[in-house]
Amino acid sequence: MDKYIFELEFNVRDYECDLQGVVNNSVYQNYMEHTRHEFLKTTGLDFAGLHSQGIDPVVYKIEIDFKLPLKSGDKFISKLNIEREGHLKMIFYQDIYRKSDNKLINKGKVTAVIIKNGRPSSPDFFFDELYKV
Amino acid sequence: MDKYIFELEFNVRDYECDLQGVVNNSVYQNYMEHTRHEFLKTTGLDFAGLHSQGIDPVVYKIEIDFKLPLKSGDKFISKLNIEREGHLKMIFYQDIYRKSDNKLINKGKVTAVIIKNGRPSSPDFFFDELYKV
Amino acid sequence: MDKYIFELEFNVRDYECDLQGVVNNSVYQNYMEHTRHEFLKTTGLDFAGLHSQGIDPVVYKIEIDFKLPLKSGDKFISKLNIEREGHLKMIFYQDIYRKSDNKLINKGKVTAVIIKNGRPSSPDFFFDELYKV
Amino acid sequence: MDKYIFELEFNVRDYECDLQGVVNNSVYQNYMEHTRHEFLKTTGLDFAGLHSQGIDPVVYKIEIDFKLPLKSGDKFISKLNIEREGHLKMIFYQDIYRKSDNKLINKGKVTAVIIKNGRPSSPDFFFDELYKV
Repeated sequence: MDKYIFELEFNVRDYECDLQGVVNNSVYQNYMEHTRHEFLKTTGLDFAGLHSQGIDPVVYKIEIDFKLPLKSGDKFISKLNIEREGHLKMIFYQDIYRKSDNKLINKGKVTAVIIKNGRPSSPDFFFDELYKV
Repeated sequence: MDKYIFELEFNVRDYECDLQGVVNNSVYQNYMEHTRHEFLKTTGLDFAGLHSQGIDPVVYKIEIDFKLPLKSGDKFISKLNIEREGHLKMIFYQDIYRKSDNKLINKGKVTAVIIKNGRPSSPDFFFDELYKV
Repeated sequence: MDKYIFELEFNVRDYECDLQGVVNNSVYQNYMEHTRHEFLKTTGLDFAGLHSQGIDPVVYKIEIDFKLPLKSGDKFISKLNIEREGHLKMIFYQDIYRKSDNKLINKGKVTAVIIKNGRPSSPDFFFDELYKV
Repeated sequence: MDKYIFELEFNVRDYECDLQGVVNNSVYQNYMEHTRHEFLKTTGLDFAGLHSQGIDPVVYKIEIDFKLPLKSGDKFISKLNIEREGHLKMIFYQDIYRKSDNKLINKGKVTAVIIKNGRPSSPDFFFDELYKV
């Protein structure tokens, strides 16, 4: 896999920074979630809409390597790729790059599954929408 | 009104502090909301349960005077009183005191209404539960 | 005062929504803070930079009227005007409009003061920068 | 390693729940950070105090397995153990259990390093304080 299929630009917001003066680690999960949901919309699906149909993509596992901190005033690009693993898992590769110098800020891997009416369900419908795009 | 009818103790959590090294202003709304919801439980009602019945208490207006900042390591007491205003409004008086010296940190007034199936609805059921306690 | 001097467009992010399915009230303070800080940058000043010089704009009082909720998928415009009050106070009028229909979402008034080395200080330098723009 | 050396009880706060009605994934990083910082205090050190001396523990890598969601009203216990890895790394094993039935909610592994004046530094002082306790 040598490229990303979606990217989204953000600005650091000062309230996201903690007393160390850098973006708090938990906030990267917010950035990554927003990136996945915006990506989802490009396929014609949306998170709130799926939830109202009883379909909930849920995060099963998250791994993030923090390389460099983002600070107040930084702009950054959140990039995403996706792969299927087995019948049920979707793997999102999500990396964040500082805009000014293209340095890698962090490297994430998010494993998600679809829960439909309380049980794991195939993500086929999602990949079908994705490959139509 | 010379006293509070409910109080709840909290510790500042470091992730709630921003780059000025103090609790970010928006976080006081979180503290105040959590205080209201815990208070609600003492009446036998709960926020998530009400929501699942189509009953949503919603904040109509908020006013907060910020007197002193809370910092990492501070413990504080969030205190609450309630009054009815007219047919539909509930006024929560919510003040926060630093535990170490009992100094007033901020003073809040929150006006809430009950929305039931999309329309403002009487908070009678709430005051009924409250006065039973 | 019949117009705004600054505006910023946002998208609701799903993690900002709470179990009622709408943007949590406290998040509007985040939106408003981010709007003020981005506005500040247009004058050549910035919040983190001021903090590192011992100058901290702090919120003294906040009043927000919540008119309509924002939901997942909504885009909105956060608009701002500013007025001086007395020697020390800066009043920010901050209103949020839903983009799709220009409906007023909420109406805010934020009173801020400048704290310099622990004491209230004149915001002259700020208004000087502002009127240069 | 067959036990935890620190644990902390929490209540889910409603503002931590998202539109799926469960605690948002990013919030677990908040819980885990607060647990580490409270643990740190038991050794006589504290995060904000260290930061003011130019010493910043920073998260290098995070891995979380999400087993079950927490919901509004849940109480839970956040448990922690620590191990040293090589000269520079501290590994925090951080697991969260629902209080009502002791079910495992999630399983986390957090790799942290100490940054002192901008460079990685030995966590010896930390382990020295820890073993004194």
